[in-house]
Amino acid sequence: MSARDGLIARLTGIVGEANVLIDAGDVAGYRTDGRGEGDGVPLAVVRPVDADAVSALIHLAAERGVRIVVQGARTGLAGAGLASEDGGCLIVNLDRLSRHIAIDPENRTATVDAGVRLSALNAAAAEHGLFFPIDLGADPAIGGMIAANTGGSRLLRYGDVRSNLLSLDFVRADAEGASMTLGAPLWKNNTGLDLKQLLVGSAGSMGIVTRATLALQPLPRHRITAMIALREPAFALPLLLALERDFGTLLSAFEGMSGPAYAAALEHVPGLRSPFANIPNYVVLVELSAGAVLDEALLEEWLAVDLEPYMDGDGAPVIDVAIDHRDGLWAIRHAVPEGLRASGTVIACDIALRRGDMMRFRDDMAGRLKAEAPMLVPHDFGHIGDGGLHYNLVWPSAAGPVDRTVVERTRSLIFDAVVREYGGSFSAEHGIGPRNIAHYPRFVPAPVRQLAGALQQLVAPVPLGRVDFGMME
Amino acid sequence: MSARDGLIARLTGIVGEANVLIDAGDVAGYRTDGRGEGDGVPLAVVRPVDADAVSALIHLAAERGVRIVVQGARTGLAGAGLASEDGGCLIVNLDRLSRHIAIDPENRTATVDAGVRLSALNAAAAEHGLFFPIDLGADPAIGGMIAANTGGSRLLRYGDVRSNLLSLDFVRADAEGASMTLGAPLWKNNTGLDLKQLLVGSAGSMGIVTRATLALQPLPRHRITAMIALREPAFALPLLLALERDFGTLLSAFEGMSGPAYAAALEHVPGLRSPFANIPNYVVLVELSAGAVLDEALLEEWLAVDLEPYMDGDGAPVIDVAIDHRDGLWAIRHAVPEGLRASGTVIACDIALRRGDMMRFRDDMAGRLKAEAPMLVPHDFGHIGDGGLHYNLVWPSAAGPVDRTVVERTRSLIFDAVVREYGGSFSAEHGIGPRNIAHYPRFVPAPVRQLAGALQQLVAPVPLGRVDFGMME
Repeated sequence: MSARDGLIARLTGIVGEANVLIDAGDVAGYRTDGRGEGDGVPLAVVRPVDADAVSALIHLAAERGVRIVVQGARTGLAGAGLASEDGGCLIVNLDRLSRHIAIDPENRTATVDAGVRLSALNAAAAEHGLFFPIDLGADPAIGGMIAANTGGSRLLRYGDVRSNLLSLDFVRADAEGASMTLGAPLWKNNTGLDLKQLLVGSAGSMGIVTRATLALQPLPRHRITAMIALREPAFALPLLLALERDFGTLLSAFEGMSGPAYAAALEHVPGLRSPFANIPNYVVLVELSAGAVLDEALLEEWLAVDLEPYMDGDGAPVIDVAIDHRDGLWAIRHAVPEGLRASGTVIACDIALRRGDMMRFRDDMAGRLKAEAPMLVPHDFGHIGDGGLHYNLVWPSAAGPVDRTVVERTRSLIFDAVVREYGGSFSAEHGIGPRNIAHYPRFVPAPVRQLAGALQQLVAPVPLGRVDFGMME
Repeated sequence: MSARDGLIARLTGIVGEANVLIDAGDVAGYRTDGRGEGDGVPLAVVRPVDADAVSALIHLAAERGVRIVVQGARTGLAGAGLASEDGGCLIVNLDRLSRHIAIDPENRTATVDAGVRLSALNAAAAEHGLFFPIDLGADPAIGGMIAANTGGSRLLRYGDVRSNLLSLDFVRADAEGASMTLGAPLWKNNTGLDLKQLLVGSAGSMGIVTRATLALQPLPRHRITAMIALREPAFALPLLLALERDFGTLLSAFEGMSGPAYAAALEHVPGLRSPFANIPNYVVLVELSAGAVLDEALLEEWLAVDLEPYMDGDGAPVIDVAIDHRDGLWAIRHAVPEGLRASGTVIACDIALRRGDMMRFRDDMAGRLKAEAPMLVPHDFGHIGDGGLHYNLVWPSAAGPVDRTVVERTRSLIFDAVVREYGGSFSAEHGIGPRNIAHYPRFVPAPVRQLAGALQQLVAPVPLGRVDFGMME
């Protein structure tokens, strides 16, 4: 029996034959994530159904010197859950570790297996008038959301995954594959170092989360969405500040779309209809939501009062407003990524800036791109209420074959400006993975990387995942 | 020159003579925190004015083998900022590291020195219609708030310090006293392990935070408070769930006071007036707050509609309701700790439970205490909307001298029940320090302590502060 056959036999012993995939055809579906196919082919894909199996897999991997890469619902955008190019890694996919979903409606918490999807969690929570308030276009697994510390469209009001995580169980990447519970199903709990924080945003490189307890929020009973066409993007900031002052925590999303991003969604995604006669220069999507005491009519009335002064006369900053009591306007916003992909090759830059810098950055960068890479057209959009901007560029299909050198040079130019000139972030909410790891040592100072690497070594002595946080240039 | 004189000379060289306190009289004020005087006397108290001085002090302490204990505004309740009994430690007090307060109103952030008080931060933020939403009875320094991960009365809506911290500068406790910036003034930022989390809730044992950037929130423009007298404590939970459903994020606090806690505040603290004819069995304080679009009249009207069904007829669960548009009712709630201190000796237990367990725990524990320690009268109060309960007992002055053995046995009994029977926490929001460290190894599992200790060793190789997170039994 070859070493590989021996490994497969051991894997089969742990998770059963049906949960060990090795044929190229069976494995194919596990080689892609939210950005398409990765370059690597795994040794095998295994699908454990419980934490004990995860522990046994870690133990086996340690013994054999095989690197495990954990994979959730394959909606990640940084490639952190995909096989490495060397062909030597084992994908541990958590799809089947998804049997446990327990809602505690009095405590407003949910305890779920790591492979449970966001949609399944929310379906269970909705029966109790609750939801997990991280809003995303995709439907990730909870374990993946923890590994990426996802943010999304409602961070403005509810925070990120980190702010809504109460406890987790994880298997350490050590020789034993020891399980550990960190935290408790409690809203307040300060009994020492909060070690679970090390797993959040760790790109699956610090251990394998098998179960988590999450904080839930009351499902809003009333909600309106407004799509607002602006004469100039710069008006987004004063509008945001006015809405925050006037609506307080009733403001649950403040999203932005550049004209090209908005146009691409409408042009390429079937079933959408623009509420505006023309493609605006810039579009803001505002969501207001509230409990049962309020109603949509009141929210709409108040919003109209708030916006009125900005709509008055020629040259008014607000050109037009459309109101929606359902999800039609959100559908346009959520269609933007698909619209971009249909327009050409997308160069994605998931950046964050101080909120006050966003529109200045856009102007500044548009000018530089015209000089440096005129074929790349900014199609930016994102969560401008929290400073998160998907500063995505499109290389139009009509502009000929993509030159990867130009693309990578341009991404570097953008990230350099974001981090070095604006003090922003080169990874707002997608996290670190093979697709952006090259920029990690460029922007994270060496002493921070050194410390992070030592922590990783300590918590996960057996190499796990795709990211080495101690990476030097 | 003696070794001590040599040390004082070096300290003076770093911070200047005026900022080195050694006389017993000068030092006295630095030996107390929010629970009174600690047992230790420091070698000296030094007051650095900038991060460079902090770094030099760490360097010196490492060289001399002197343990530094960091101290903020001395409002902590676990003793983590007080000198140890061995007399060998140096208090580094951050009162004077408080010159920098910069508000970025567009970004809704504040960057402040660690010694800045919460009240000073909020005064600066208020000029821009903003506030730091951690609400406490005390006025701590920001560095202390980070070290304790304070929660307070509005965690229900805004989360704890951890959820509202964007970045920090800290000095490592290593031989060099190296400074490091972790994070950035950004709402979304995922560029690797979030190492700043290790400083949050670390009781000043992982490094010295010198500056931080915090997330601010729009200051509510309208606010009402309702004091609600309940026939039975058990009705607090259905009331909370109804208000969460109906008011959503307009609900900004949900506090509870037992009859004895409420009575103690009114009896002993001057200037308070109960809105109720009798002392209720249980009192809930509800705060609703909103942006400019809403007003107090509307909030009051909606609350009346919500409460009406619970006030109807004999035996109705709600006995009486008082409404306040200012801070009179909050004053009663904030007076509870003082009322308890005036009633006798307070045995404080800062616990957390699942919200659904709170009232069952109270009944259960009251019965056990009657049998085990009948002189100790529960005077519990707290943040019952988030499961945080100050399960405080009073040994009345009239019951004779306090028997410390009974007190410690009773605290252990309470903590055992909380953690082992209810899955709760023995430290909800005050954190770990000399006053409760004995319980840490009893409830935190050995593998978690082992890992925490190794992390502490790695991040802070030079011993710092009062807590050893690797402590074994």
